[in-house]
Amino acid sequence: MKNALGVEIPEYIDGLGELQPYQGVWNSVLKGDVASQTVPTVLKAQKAHVSKMCDSLEDAIKKSQPFDGMTVSCHHHLRGGDGVLMQAIAILDKMGIKDITLASSSLTSAHDGLVPYIESGMITRIFSSGIRGRLGEIISMGKLKHPAVIHSHGGRVRDIMSGRIKPDLALLAASAADEEGNATGAHGPSAFGSMGYADIDARYAKTVVVVTDNLVEYPCVPPSVRQHFVDYVVTVDSIGDASKIASGTTRITSSPMDLRIARIAATVIEHSGLFKNGMSFQVGAGGASLAVAKFLREDMKRKNIQGSFMIGGVTSYGVDMLEEGLFKAIFDVQSFDAAVSTSVLNNPQHIEITCDQYANPNNCGAMTNKLDVVVLGALEVDVDFNVNVITGSSGEIRGASGGHSDTASGANLSVVVCPSFRGRLPIIMDRVHTVVTPGESVDVIVTERGVCVNPSKPNLAAALKKAGVNVVDIRDLKKEVDSMTGIPAEKKLGDKIVALVEYRDGTIIDVIKNVTNLE
Amino acid sequence: MKNALGVEIPEYIDGLGELQPYQGVWNSVLKGDVASQTVPTVLKAQKAHVSKMCDSLEDAIKKSQPFDGMTVSCHHHLRGGDGVLMQAIAILDKMGIKDITLASSSLTSAHDGLVPYIESGMITRIFSSGIRGRLGEIISMGKLKHPAVIHSHGGRVRDIMSGRIKPDLALLAASAADEEGNATGAHGPSAFGSMGYADIDARYAKTVVVVTDNLVEYPCVPPSVRQHFVDYVVTVDSIGDASKIASGTTRITSSPMDLRIARIAATVIEHSGLFKNGMSFQVGAGGASLAVAKFLREDMKRKNIQGSFMIGGVTSYGVDMLEEGLFKAIFDVQSFDAAVSTSVLNNPQHIEITCDQYANPNNCGAMTNKLDVVVLGALEVDVDFNVNVITGSSGEIRGASGGHSDTASGANLSVVVCPSFRGRLPIIMDRVHTVVTPGESVDVIVTERGVCVNPSKPNLAAALKKAGVNVVDIRDLKKEVDSMTGIPAEKKLGDKIVALVEYRDGTIIDVIKNVTNLE
Repeated sequence: MKNALGVEIPEYIDGLGELQPYQGVWNSVLKGDVASQTVPTVLKAQKAHVSKMCDSLEDAIKKSQPFDGMTVSCHHHLRGGDGVLMQAIAILDKMGIKDITLASSSLTSAHDGLVPYIESGMITRIFSSGIRGRLGEIISMGKLKHPAVIHSHGGRVRDIMSGRIKPDLALLAASAADEEGNATGAHGPSAFGSMGYADIDARYAKTVVVVTDNLVEYPCVPPSVRQHFVDYVVTVDSIGDASKIASGTTRITSSPMDLRIARIAATVIEHSGLFKNGMSFQVGAGGASLAVAKFLREDMKRKNIQGSFMIGGVTSYGVDMLEEGLFKAIFDVQSFDAAVSTSVLNNPQHIEITCDQYANPNNCGAMTNKLDVVVLGALEVDVDFNVNVITGSSGEIRGASGGHSDTASGANLSVVVCPSFRGRLPIIMDRVHTVVTPGESVDVIVTERGVCVNPSKPNLAAALKKAGVNVVDIRDLKKEVDSMTGIPAEKKLGDKIVALVEYRDGTIIDVIKNVTNLE
Repeated sequence: MKNALGVEIPEYIDGLGELQPYQGVWNSVLKGDVASQTVPTVLKAQKAHVSKMCDSLEDAIKKSQPFDGMTVSCHHHLRGGDGVLMQAIAILDKMGIKDITLASSSLTSAHDGLVPYIESGMITRIFSSGIRGRLGEIISMGKLKHPAVIHSHGGRVRDIMSGRIKPDLALLAASAADEEGNATGAHGPSAFGSMGYADIDARYAKTVVVVTDNLVEYPCVPPSVRQHFVDYVVTVDSIGDASKIASGTTRITSSPMDLRIARIAATVIEHSGLFKNGMSFQVGAGGASLAVAKFLREDMKRKNIQGSFMIGGVTSYGVDMLEEGLFKAIFDVQSFDAAVSTSVLNNPQHIEITCDQYANPNNCGAMTNKLDVVVLGALEVDVDFNVNVITGSSGEIRGASGGHSDTASGANLSVVVCPSFRGRLPIIMDRVHTVVTPGESVDVIVTERGVCVNPSKPNLAAALKKAGVNVVDIRDLKKEVDSMTGIPAEKKLGDKIVALVEYRDGTIIDVIKNVTNLE
């Protein structure tokens, strides 16, 4: 069967079950086609005064009664410094547990160590927002038994609530926790800020284990994850490498190209009709993306604009803007540095939110649906405004879906910033190698050579032209770039589906085939 | 069929379905007999940027598409000052909606106006923790079509999660809210403190309406109820009578009898083996009950004891003890006066909790299961330590189940304080008229004439005797009191079941028959 973007989608995949084709940004979710209701949560009656403390991570995992075919879930708030997941997989492997489904909210450079467990068949399924590095390479080569499923952050919540992902064991790393499992990432030696991705695992997993290297006196405040969802608590020597968890103040890029693109994007926002008091805003932490915040900050001060809220992956740059009064609040599902943790802990206007509240397409008040402006990056874009943030120039998996499609669908203005070429490779394609975010939800693509406005927004194009922005037709821009770079050779791909890209509503928006030139 | 207390329980009741008999404090809940899983929550996908604001309460109710046989739920945080429920019922009645199930977390003196709607058959079922005043009288006379169901606070959460109560429309009064439905009771002219009972309605009701008289700029902080559960928001002139919502600083009783009982109870606690650093404590707001806190406070200071946490209905007296450092934290599911609202808002150690966290028997970390000491009141007790807090001396419904059975089941020491007689009526019976809390979960009954210890706790009895406490056999005490008061005449009762008393696990612990001498 073909989906709304013309991609051939298998009706059924062994080990994953039936698939549904992508039908457009809002069609499936509003019809309730994909999931009309949630699965029940697990009841866990306990007698009074039973201790949850375990002697070791191994003890905690044993108590969860692990079995072949189980699903293990975790969050990725520790980012590149995560030291919990690899410990747990090694323990499960030592116990002889096989055929594991791994359902992390994302996977990072800290998880290259998963490679041998995939090659041995111990891990056979992966659900994740992101897959990178060597892990992405071997999955791209087809070494994971069943295709990996790439979901958005909001899509993961829906996946769990609808029963697509059924966590048997959730391992929730916390930088502070108490004996009952009240847990937070807002303080402690390994502080990582918001614990927003962990909430859905805590509510739906059969067994929930809080893992901490900082057991504090009861009660742990703030209780980002609450005790009545937690079965066991265990202390470990370290939940990770603090230097890679809290990477320090996020700096604005010094790349002239990124700064130029960011300046243009800020001008686009200024003349979009949305640049006024009460504006809400999300920006990523990447180069040109975060740099837009720098220019927007200057523009807001100059024009005396006060925004409503910022959301998303929160940087200390965003915290500065909150403290300057440029925004009234930050809603924080994921924090990016140590300064942010302090703000989560101490500033009542810095509101920790669950990923359900951030971006779940199936509730009636996700933050992404209230968003005015989002600025997003891209690995590739195409003439239909589709965006690829997951596969690289060889077709290999090397990125993350994240909140890209969630925010693009909800924001009044979704701006993609990218250079028109990287190295000698053009960024604008006839069709991106992999669609993560459909063009229907992308309004503007900003490059250093011109600004492309989605033809569905003629009024926006007119307003930008009137303001002197260099608005160009995306097909013309593509030709211009191609004439400089040449058209790159076709990617070398096989016929095997190695990953599915799930749209936020649970339908399949694209498939990723194996690459043959990596070995 | 007979339950574990020998009460004849019908297997089926028209309009309510099958019943299960009470089997003991822990038996049913740990076996998962009553509800082995939860019902799914409702998915509510919405397009982006849709306004939730309604023109009027009538408009909001219309948007919920009300129908005959629907269930309307609400919380009782506004206590005797509630002005929302009666407005809503009048609107539904004007629309001609019939056969309504009313599922309030409790009902108070503010709800006497429900009487004509029950008599007219517009309201046919009631689930509530408490029923009082004229409302209790007419239900006791059998004027509600189907028996009322009295649940505990924790039991209500289980009732909703297991689908026993299925709210179609939840009306959630808030003293401050924003346009997206983020809502709180912690500030505003009608501040009422914690909004703990509302969470479960927000998560499970088909349509959730936040009703406020204080619409604040987005975002409302703290977001006690969060926007992604809220369908509609409406402002009304007033959510209630602020003078009855926030009744001012709770005063300690000046009754010499209550003070005497309280002093004895504090001595019992002091010598229970639990009076030490890290002790946790709940006390009610009633006369002798709150007075125990006064003596405990003095004892803690004298012996330099620092407790861990207080829970429950929170009074400003409890807040004083938190601020003095006598306890490290308060977990607040329900607040009793204005001073408490300020503390909820400003003190991070004053933690607002949901009723799920407070007392749900089906999760793995309810606060009641971590409680050391609870002090509870009683309308009647019996020689088997069963406690009645729901029916009065004529057998009429006039009280509330509240957290009585929840805390008694979880606490290491449950202390019931009551005078040995009231007026000319003895309080200790051979069998209480209605069992709300089973004797199995009651450890000590403290009266002014002596302290009765449950025979299941011989070590406690020995420790108290050693400390000089006047420990007496409850049957001896009953005889002594009966000899003074005489044995009162039998209550005049009919054969019709007018209410069911649900134990916290969902089984039926007792039935209430109609009274014939009230009219």
